[in-house]
Parts: sequence; structure tokens; C-alpha cells
Amino acid sequence: MATLGLIEYEDASPEVRAVYDDIMATRKTDWINNFWKAIANDPATLTRTWQSVKEIMGPGVLDALTKEMIYVAVSASNQCGYCIASHTAAARKAGMSDEMFAELMAVVGMANETNRLASGYQVEIDEQFKLPGASARQGQEREHDLLR
Amino acid sequence: MATLGLIEYEDASPEVRAVYDDIMATRKTDWINNFWKAIANDPATLTRTWQSVKEIMGPGVLDALTKEMIYVAVSASNQCGYCIASHTAAARKAGMSDEMFAELMAVVGMANETNRLASGYQVEIDEQFKLPGASARQGQEREHDLLR
Amino acid sequence: MATLGLIEYEDASPEVRAVYDDIMATRKTDWINNFWKAIANDPATLTRTWQSVKEIMGPGVLDALTKEMIYVAVSASNQCGYCIASHTAAARKAGMSDEMFAELMAVVGMANETNRLASGYQVEIDEQFKLPGASARQGQEREHDLLR
Amino acid sequence: MATLGLIEYEDASPEVRAVYDDIMATRKTDWINNFWKAIANDPATLTRTWQSVKEIMGPGVLDALTKEMIYVAVSASNQCGYCIASHTAAARKAGMSDEMFAELMAVVGMANETNRLASGYQVEIDEQFKLPGASARQGQEREHDLLR
Amino acid sequence: MATLGLIEYEDASPEVRAVYDDIMATRKTDWINNFWKAIANDPATLTRTWQSVKEIMGPGVLDALTKEMIYVAVSASNQCGYCIASHTAAARKAGMSDEMFAELMAVVGMANETNRLASGYQVEIDEQFKLPGASARQGQEREHDLLR
Amino acid sequence: MATLGLIEYEDASPEVRAVYDDIMATRKTDWINNFWKAIANDPATLTRTWQSVKEIMGPGVLDALTKEMIYVAVSASNQCGYCIASHTAAARKAGMSDEMFAELMAVVGMANETNRLASGYQVEIDEQFKLPGASARQGQEREHDLLR
Repeated sequence: MATLGLIEYEDASPEVRAVYDDIMATRKTDWINNFWKAIANDPATLTRTWQSVKEIMGPGVLDALTKEMIYVAVSASNQCGYCIASHTAAARKAGMSDEMFAELMAVVGMANETNRLASGYQVEIDEQFKLPGASARQGQEREHDLLR
Repeated sequence: MATLGLIEYEDASPEVRAVYDDIMATRKTDWINNFWKAIANDPATLTRTWQSVKEIMGPGVLDALTKEMIYVAVSASNQCGYCIASHTAAARKAGMSDEMFAELMAVVGMANETNRLASGYQVEIDEQFKLPGASARQGQEREHDLLR
Repeated sequence: MATLGLIEYEDASPEVRAVYDDIMATRKTDWINNFWKAIANDPATLTRTWQSVKEIMGPGVLDALTKEMIYVAVSASNQCGYCIASHTAAARKAGMSDEMFAELMAVVGMANETNRLASGYQVEIDEQFKLPGASARQGQEREHDLLR
Repeated sequence: MATLGLIEYEDASPEVRAVYDDIMATRKTDWINNFWKAIANDPATLTRTWQSVKEIMGPGVLDALTKEMIYVAVSASNQCGYCIASHTAAARKAGMSDEMFAELMAVVGMANETNRLASGYQVEIDEQFKLPGASARQGQEREHDLLR
Repeated sequence: MATLGLIEYEDASPEVRAVYDDIMATRKTDWINNFWKAIANDPATLTRTWQSVKEIMGPGVLDALTKEMIYVAVSASNQCGYCIASHTAAARKAGMSDEMFAELMAVVGMANETNRLASGYQVEIDEQFKLPGASARQGQEREHDLLR
Repeated sequence: MATLGLIEYEDASPEVRAVYDDIMATRKTDWINNFWKAIANDPATLTRTWQSVKEIMGPGVLDALTKEMIYVAVSASNQCGYCIASHTAAARKAGMSDEMFAELMAVVGMANETNRLASGYQVEIDEQFKLPGASARQGQEREHDLLR
């Protein structure tokens, strides 16, 4: 049972409906999943979260499928049942095949394993990984800072 | 200080050297980072971990860059300093630009935020995310997309 | 199904009943929630945990509501379904309104996001945050050590 | 070493400087901590994150000190060294005394302990915590929904 | 609903059946639990994971019961419901009594508490814990390196 | 820099000194590690934490070495650098050999991997693991409840 209940479209204020409409239009769907209906109890959080998700998950240098798979990777690492279910569905819709899902899970599992081997063995970070520019870029010249 | 110390190439047994050689050949580098030197104290773990990493991170339906970015996403979520440093370097080597890193971080941050909004608001999983076949697909042909 | 089952009041030993009685008296309720009934299988853990919770959550420089909200914040970050449910109820009983819950969740979500941006970007701790006394207290004079 | 380096004020673009100026004005300080200088490499993330933090941490039904302590609670649970350092300093600036910090830590520690006792003992959520309205509000009448 | 469904023995390929047979023979049981049926959708992950589990959980310097209890400790810390259920059953089968389970949980709870007190109070690692050999071995002479 | 600084023995109040003395006597050492000196700023937390640790880590059905290894397993899973360092040293002192540490790490790594495969694949808990008594005890008769 969602803590504050779920706000259905027909019960929503104009402010909330506007966000729901934008979610459906952006995602080309005709329904709103429970996550949004739950946080709609706080219109400020609904609006801010949707704007951030829309901006972050929209077109960029990473494609939509990659972004959704990263979302699944984080959610699986964090044991968030809702997020695993919803973002696995979203990743499938964005084109994730069964094989891609399986490889994704293999990487997520391995990363979680070696994360603990590294911490458990108290491994120091190599100097090569720390040098400014050089370490991060593996010795390549940094011709220009693309992000500035 | 790594718990059991680091095994340098010149001090390594033939079994460990063989793994080191394969790591350098596979990665086309001439050095071994501390993670492997630390777990080399347990040759069984070194061999098994390297074989798993080599198999999982090798060619598949996901490209090397995507896999390394997923690795960074998991490591950042888990707060593993060593792993963030080493896999950020690996992702760069695989072609991750500054912009790609920035988008990756934005997705990781957002996923960690919404993971807690979903759990904190106690959001129930939508039935649409639970339907057998439709959402999960079970390898069958997808006659119609129930989720759209 | 709780691993060792739940110990109901009528089946409890005098030792366990004494703790149950104190829980109900302290919390001004007439029932015991499952958490205590589960750990009651180990009277030592029941007694120690209740004594610690009673001491920590009791009157102090932080009020009861603030403490319960902090408990919810930690539980949501850790994805502990039981704890989110029980401490959200406890926080409400202590006076948390819907608006307070919504703000709490917004802070929890944001903190989880920036925690990963900070680790993912490998941000070094500022010297200002490290200086003894000064850093921690932002340059304010420490007149006396209140806790000693 | 921050992955993409730190953007100092004098090297920042007008867009980034505007955010830095707003951070300093809002916080009434004359310096920018490393977190913002690190994510400034991605102006979109800098702007969005600052706007969200400003909105969430600003005036509301929870006071600034409570919000900063919640931030510290989450950061300590997540083992984010940078965030613990920076938000402990911020909480102090907002008025957190040594005693308040000590009580905060006691609650955070206890919550992390009982979170694992609850999951480890596989405790089922009590029906009282699940009932719509009643469970969440402990039987209190809901006079009006303040958040809609 | 498992994302890719569960592969039952009668529907399994010879490759998957061979792993199932080995699992049942090794564990002296006549059934396969859902975890394996779920990852069997990816035979490479099934095979690799089983081989690793078999190697790691098999005879060594730590006994089977200790290993299963460590597995439960990690799973409870990570809030993995499936893993807590399956490995608690496995630990019981390996001889874990109710008292052992209760002590295990007490240690897991305490470790999760002090982990956050240590991080929250920003405690520096003692020099004694950092000295090579000496620190790790508490000043004892290291007669020979057993693992090389 | 520990948030509230470290309380050295010579600067400690009689109450704190009594705890320090008991720690040294119980552990048969002549020094106090930083964790205790940090939380000594809050004598109530120092006293309660030490009493709990002393009770939990003392003689029971699990031996001291097993308990310390469980502590390391949890700390490595949580990425708590201080705790990994201090409890690895404690485990060694309790008799953990290099081989035992290596096996411990292998189990911890594997558990963290399969925890995420289980959550990521959304594996349902087997009915066999849920049946009261039967599931938990794998069908064995429960002759008597030892803990009541």
C-alpha cells in the first residue's frame, strides 16, 4: 500500500494532470505507472522529478537503451524491486533483447563481486589511475575540454 | 596497504604469471593493476575471477564500452573507490568521452534517487510489469505490446 | 514467514513478556509488532535491542519525531521494506504530516543522488572540511566541549 | 583526483559562474566546495542539481537543520566519505551541536542494525502497517488531504 | 514473476540439464530452486555461476556451515529477500541451529551498526592496522607465506 | 579527521576510562583503537556500544573467529574501510590464516554477485523456502524449540 496512496488521473489537480499528460506524450503511452501516482501526492516532487528524468533520459550522447540498462544495473545493485520491474520493462521497450538483459545481469553481478574483493582485500588505488589527466585518460593527450 | 600484500610479476608463481600474461595480452597493456596483484595471493580466486571477467566483459551483444559504463554505474552506487577509479579508466580506454561520463553519472544519480523515492513511498509494482510473457516476453514472439 | 516464527504474548516466557510489557507501556500501545515477536526467539537479542532502542529513541536533544524521520531515511536508503512500513507508521504517530513525509522523501532521494555524483566524480574532500575543529565547526570558536 | 578535474570560478563559463554566484549568495559563503566544481564539468548537471538542492533544502515544513541531519544520516548509511564530511559541516553551520550529532549517529547506527535484524529474520509486515489510511495513519481520521 | 521465466528440467537443453544434474548430485537433493531456473535462460551464466559456487562453497579451510552463514550475513546486509530465504535454508541443512542463527543475526546487526558509527564519526584508520605485515598480523612473525 | 576528535585515555572522564579499561582487559591489549576514542565523545553511545559488542562477540555457540569473519564479511559488503581494517586485524588475532581470509573473501564476493542476479532476474522465493517450519528446516522434524 503506497504510503500516501495513489493519485489517479481523474482525481488529480490540473498541475498534476499536466505532468501526467507530459509523461504519456513523451513516452507515447496511455497510462501512468504507480511511481508517478505515488509521488503525485507532493506536486513539487512530481514536477521536479519528472523534469529531471525527462532531461536525463532524453536524447544525448548515450542512447535511450543504454540509459535504461544503466538504470536497471543501479536498481538491481540497490535491491529496489519496484525499480527493477519498471526499468526492465522500459529497457525492453527501448529494444533490450533477452540476450542483452542476460549480459547486463552478468556484468552487474560481476561488478558487485569485484567491488567487494577490492574493498575486502583493501587494494590501494594504482598511481596510474590517480594522475591528473594522464591517469584518467590513460596517457592520451587531452586536446580540448569538450564539456566546458 | 593491501591485506595480504601485492604479488609482483617477478615474485609470482608460474600459475599466477600465466594469468598476468593473459590479462596483459587480452587488454593489450604492459602492466597489471593492483586488484589482480592483491587477489593473486589466492591463485584459485585470481584464476576464477579473471576467467569470469574475461568471459563476461568480452565480445557479446553489448559492446565493451557499454559494459564498462555499467561497471562504473554499479561501482559508484556501491561507493567502491578502487573500482570507480579503475573502471572509469577502463571505460575511457574503451572510448568513453567526457560527455558520455557526464551522462552516465546523471543517470546513476537519478536512479539512486528514484530507487529511494519508490521504496520510501512504498510503491506497489504495477500489474502491467508483472504479467507473464507480455512484460517479460519469455522468449516468445511479441504479438502485441501490452505496455504501450 | 519469519525464520524462527513469531512468539505471541501468550506463548512467551516471563523474560520475554517483561520486555513486551515494557514496549507497550513505553509506546502507549496494546499490541506488539512482528519485529519484536521475531527476535523474541532470542531473548538476549530482544532485551538488548529493546534497551538500546528505548535509550536511543527516548528523550534527548533531538525530539521523537526527528528521530523517527531519521529512522525512515535510513530504512528507505537501505531498501528495508519492513522498517520503512513500521517507522513510517511510528513517525506519523509522533506527528509527521503528509507534507513532512514528502519533504523527508525529497531530501532522502536527493542525498542518495548526490552521494553517487560525489563518489562517481571522485571528488576530493575539501581542506576546509578536514581541519580539526575549525573545519568541522566552520571556524567558530569551540568554547567548551559539551559532551565530556 | 576528481575524474574530470575541478572548475575554478576564474576558469568557469558565464553559465557556471551564475550557478556558483547563486550557491554563494544562497548559502552566505564566499567559497564553492569541490562537489560543485567537479560536476561543473557538465553544466546541465550542475544547474539541475543545484536547482533541486536549493528547492529541496530551502524553507518548508522541515527546518534546515533537520534536513541537513537527514542528509548526514543517508550519507553515513551509504558510506559516502565526501558527503559525510560536507553535510556534517553544513549541519553544524545550521546549528547542530555535538550532542545533536551524537544522538543522530546513535539513531543512524541503530536503524542500520534493526534494518538487518528485520530482513535477516524475514519478518512479515504487520497488517496494521498495511491497511490503507488506517495503518499509515494509525486509525486517525484524515480530515483533508493537505497535499492535493 | 522472474524476468525471463523459469526453465524447468523437462524443458531444459542438454547443456542446462547437465548443470541441473550436477547441482542435485552435489547438493544431494532432488529439486532445483528458482534461482538456477531463472538464470538458466542464459546457459553461460548458469554454467559459470554454478562452477564458481561449487568451487567456492566446496571443501576448503572453512567448513560448509561457516560459508553458508557468511552468505546469509551478506544477503541480510544487502536486503536480498530471495538470498536470505535460500541461504538460511542451506545453512540449516548444513547444521545451523536456531541458536547459531540468532547469534549470526546479532553479529550482522551489530556490524551494520558500527559500520555506520565508524563512517559517520569519520574515524581514521589506526596506524597499527596499516603497517605492512605487522599491522595486519598484529606484530606476529610471518614465518612463511602459505598461499604462494 | 574524526568529527568530534579522539578522546585519549589521559583526557578521558572516569566513566570513559572505565570502558577503556574493560575493552583492554577483555581484549587483552594495551591500547584503544580510534573507533572507541571517537565515539567516546558520547559516553552513552560508548558504553552501550561496548556492552553490546562485548555481549555479542563473547562466548556463545559460534566461536570468536567465526564471528570476526562475519564482521569482516558485512564490512566488506558495506564498503566500510575502517571496519574492514580493524576487523581483519581482529580476525587474524583470533586465528584467521591467509587461506581462511582468502576463502572468506571468495564467499563474500560470490554472495554479492548472486544477490544481484537474484534481484535482477526478479526470482520468486520457492514455496519450499516459505513453508512454516518445513521450509526453514527442509522437512526435518522440529523436536524442540531450543531458544524458548
